[in-house]
Amino acid sequence: MSHEILELLAEKKYSAVKQLIAQMEEADLAKLFEELESEEDTDQFNRLFRLLPKETAAEVFSYMEPEIQEKIVRALTDTELQHILDDLFMDDYVDLVEEMPANVVKRVMQNSTPENRKLINQYLKYPEDSAGSLMTNEYVYFRSGFTVAKAFEIIREHGVDKETIYTCYVTSLRKELLGVVTVREMLLAAPDTIIDSLMDTNPIHVHTHDDQEEIAKMFSRYDMLAMPVVDSEGRIVGIITIDDAVDVIQDENTEDFEKMAGMTPSDDTYLRTPVITLAKHRIIWLMVLMLSAMVTGAMLEYYEAAFVSIPLLVTFIPQIMDTGGNCGSQASTMIIRGLALDEISPKDFTKAWWKEIRVALLCSIALCSVNFIRILIQYHDPQVALVVSGTLMLTICMAKSLGCILPILAKILKLDPAIMASPLITTITDAFSILVYFNFALWYLSDRLI
Amino acid sequence: MSHEILELLAEKKYSAVKQLIAQMEEADLAKLFEELESEEDTDQFNRLFRLLPKETAAEVFSYMEPEIQEKIVRALTDTELQHILDDLFMDDYVDLVEEMPANVVKRVMQNSTPENRKLINQYLKYPEDSAGSLMTNEYVYFRSGFTVAKAFEIIREHGVDKETIYTCYVTSLRKELLGVVTVREMLLAAPDTIIDSLMDTNPIHVHTHDDQEEIAKMFSRYDMLAMPVVDSEGRIVGIITIDDAVDVIQDENTEDFEKMAGMTPSDDTYLRTPVITLAKHRIIWLMVLMLSAMVTGAMLEYYEAAFVSIPLLVTFIPQIMDTGGNCGSQASTMIIRGLALDEISPKDFTKAWWKEIRVALLCSIALCSVNFIRILIQYHDPQVALVVSGTLMLTICMAKSLGCILPILAKILKLDPAIMASPLITTITDAFSILVYFNFALWYLSDRLI
Repeated sequence: MSHEILELLAEKKYSAVKQLIAQMEEADLAKLFEELESEEDTDQFNRLFRLLPKETAAEVFSYMEPEIQEKIVRALTDTELQHILDDLFMDDYVDLVEEMPANVVKRVMQNSTPENRKLINQYLKYPEDSAGSLMTNEYVYFRSGFTVAKAFEIIREHGVDKETIYTCYVTSLRKELLGVVTVREMLLAAPDTIIDSLMDTNPIHVHTHDDQEEIAKMFSRYDMLAMPVVDSEGRIVGIITIDDAVDVIQDENTEDFEKMAGMTPSDDTYLRTPVITLAKHRIIWLMVLMLSAMVTGAMLEYYEAAFVSIPLLVTFIPQIMDTGGNCGSQASTMIIRGLALDEISPKDFTKAWWKEIRVALLCSIALCSVNFIRILIQYHDPQVALVVSGTLMLTICMAKSLGCILPILAKILKLDPAIMASPLITTITDAFSILVYFNFALWYLSDRLI
Repeated sequence: MSHEILELLAEKKYSAVKQLIAQMEEADLAKLFEELESEEDTDQFNRLFRLLPKETAAEVFSYMEPEIQEKIVRALTDTELQHILDDLFMDDYVDLVEEMPANVVKRVMQNSTPENRKLINQYLKYPEDSAGSLMTNEYVYFRSGFTVAKAFEIIREHGVDKETIYTCYVTSLRKELLGVVTVREMLLAAPDTIIDSLMDTNPIHVHTHDDQEEIAKMFSRYDMLAMPVVDSEGRIVGIITIDDAVDVIQDENTEDFEKMAGMTPSDDTYLRTPVITLAKHRIIWLMVLMLSAMVTGAMLEYYEAAFVSIPLLVTFIPQIMDTGGNCGSQASTMIIRGLALDEISPKDFTKAWWKEIRVALLCSIALCSVNFIRILIQYHDPQVALVVSGTLMLTICMAKSLGCILPILAKILKLDPAIMASPLITTITDAFSILVYFNFALWYLSDRLI
């Protein structure tokens, strides 16, 4: 369908384009603008936006990437811009202001109503990644004491502009959150029922400064569709909807993937992040780890006599180091993920460690025996085979232990467990394995050293 | 509140327990059973379940881990079990049958109604991870031509047992999906409106055999609350709700984390997976990678003469290998994640590669110059400093290229890009870097070799 629209647009068959637009999802229409932008077809781009029906334009706009939104804002007249802004939900409105460069923000603010301007300034004060920065003020609320019939009347009157109508909030005169009632409960009740008798008087809620990661977890734990946000005095100030919680879940996962590979997380998608930013995000950890590897290097220097006498020893360094690194990253990944999903908590520390020790023993029995036999066959040197396999065993146990201990320790110290991932553990394990390897060799093979 | 309940339960203050239960969320009650189970307090465990009000017992049950569900099923009488089963949603019912051991399944099936038994057998035929295995049959549907008033009548009559009432489906007499209408649209319309005029006649839907990962992506792309599932003849057979899609998102992320660390994904949580299973999931890749590291080892053997003459060369092996591995895993993580989120597609191949090359150059300028200076200061050997830094530069470029190319190649070949992660790339990069390092040394330092 997308392809068809672009063709019709090029052929200037605008009424056919309009017909197709009516059948398409807003998210797909937003994608279409990305395509036109990457082809740098500004004319078509602007024309297509003007062909959108008034009632969907704002929604399509809210699905766009910031770069595309910027282009649109720049292309619109003040009146057109005002129409879009009026129809935006407050959370998308705030996102827009947060993402745009200063001169675009200025134009957006000039075209906002005084009321919206005030609200946005208020929202911008909440910390990034807090409930306050995620929430929207388009929710349905009733005063305590209303009947179901009266509640439906309010929904019918005001519901059209609300982000969700399915979860409604019951408040006191001072807007304190007293309870939550769903449209489902109201539909299944008699029209003259007082909503107070239907509502959940102990509703799950969050505070404006609560962290978005915890909020996303609550959505998935309690299967919620919308979460009320209250201020320090218990007054409802906004709601967060499930679609935004899903985005948070994906963003937090992406952040963990990036941290675990030794990178500073990016806000933008890969293709839109400039090369210089990507490089900056990667260099710090690379540098730290490269310099840390000097420790392992210094050890090797110290054991020079050993490998000059028995050069075969050098052959097994990559194998021992790589296996140690892989074992450590397996363990740390399991633990970091378990901590992130609240499946593991610091109090499970000994249970997890004992588990890793046993897994390490099983893995090392398999790996070391295969390796022992293969060294024996290839080099007919049982002594070296024993030194390598023995080192491998200790390295595996050490790597799996570190992979378990370090993330849990980070959690206890209120650091992010994700930084205790593969790169760091590999570096520590390397030094340990070289130490074990050459000390074992110096002692056990002492008669073969020059 | 959880702690209080356990205390009151121990003191046999059952009416106080019941009062607290009424105020708690079902998900939190389910957690309570996990706590009691880990304390192996079977008496309290069974008693608490019997104290749950009839209408919440099934929901609490559906939030429990399979191990806990099994204990409950074993403890219940046939009549009690039938009550729970009757109140379960079909997707939770099918999950239960899929997760339980054979003898428990037998009891569950014996206590199911013939109708449910038939349905379950039908659901079990769908492939794991398909729409069919995720969906539930508790949805609201109307025949085409009904008025809004009639639709609300149906919701009021049948809605109480449905997993969602907010999205309703309009079907033909043969149950072909004709459109989707939301309660919101119906509430905002006049009671005598024909629903056909309100419905989306081109609704997003999936087929029974579609993959759950793609479905979860559609939920997040289109901000949906429920997705209709149709069979090969276009008849609606079930719906998938957003809460299940969120679980799929988390499961798929966990799978990627595990694969990227060189493990076979587990179905269960870390603490509940037996040691032997964890070890099995890890050994295969460890073994493959350990044996692959033999290649690097064999190369080192080949270059024995070089490092016996200049032992200092060995000192830098860990640094070069680690940095290569880290660079590769940074690049592959970004690409794998980008592919998983559909932010990168195989057609962006050259764009991504060109990006990685430039990032690699920036990173290597920083790393190599720092390393060059530090080797110069520490060892006063500009020749070795040059060999090491030169190798480092080529290794970084190679690692970043591989980290970009391999995942995209996997995607093109319809393999899972997540397997082309850090462990594999590290192993390949190791061999490459040793090759470059010693060839460079043999050529450039030839006059210093014995």
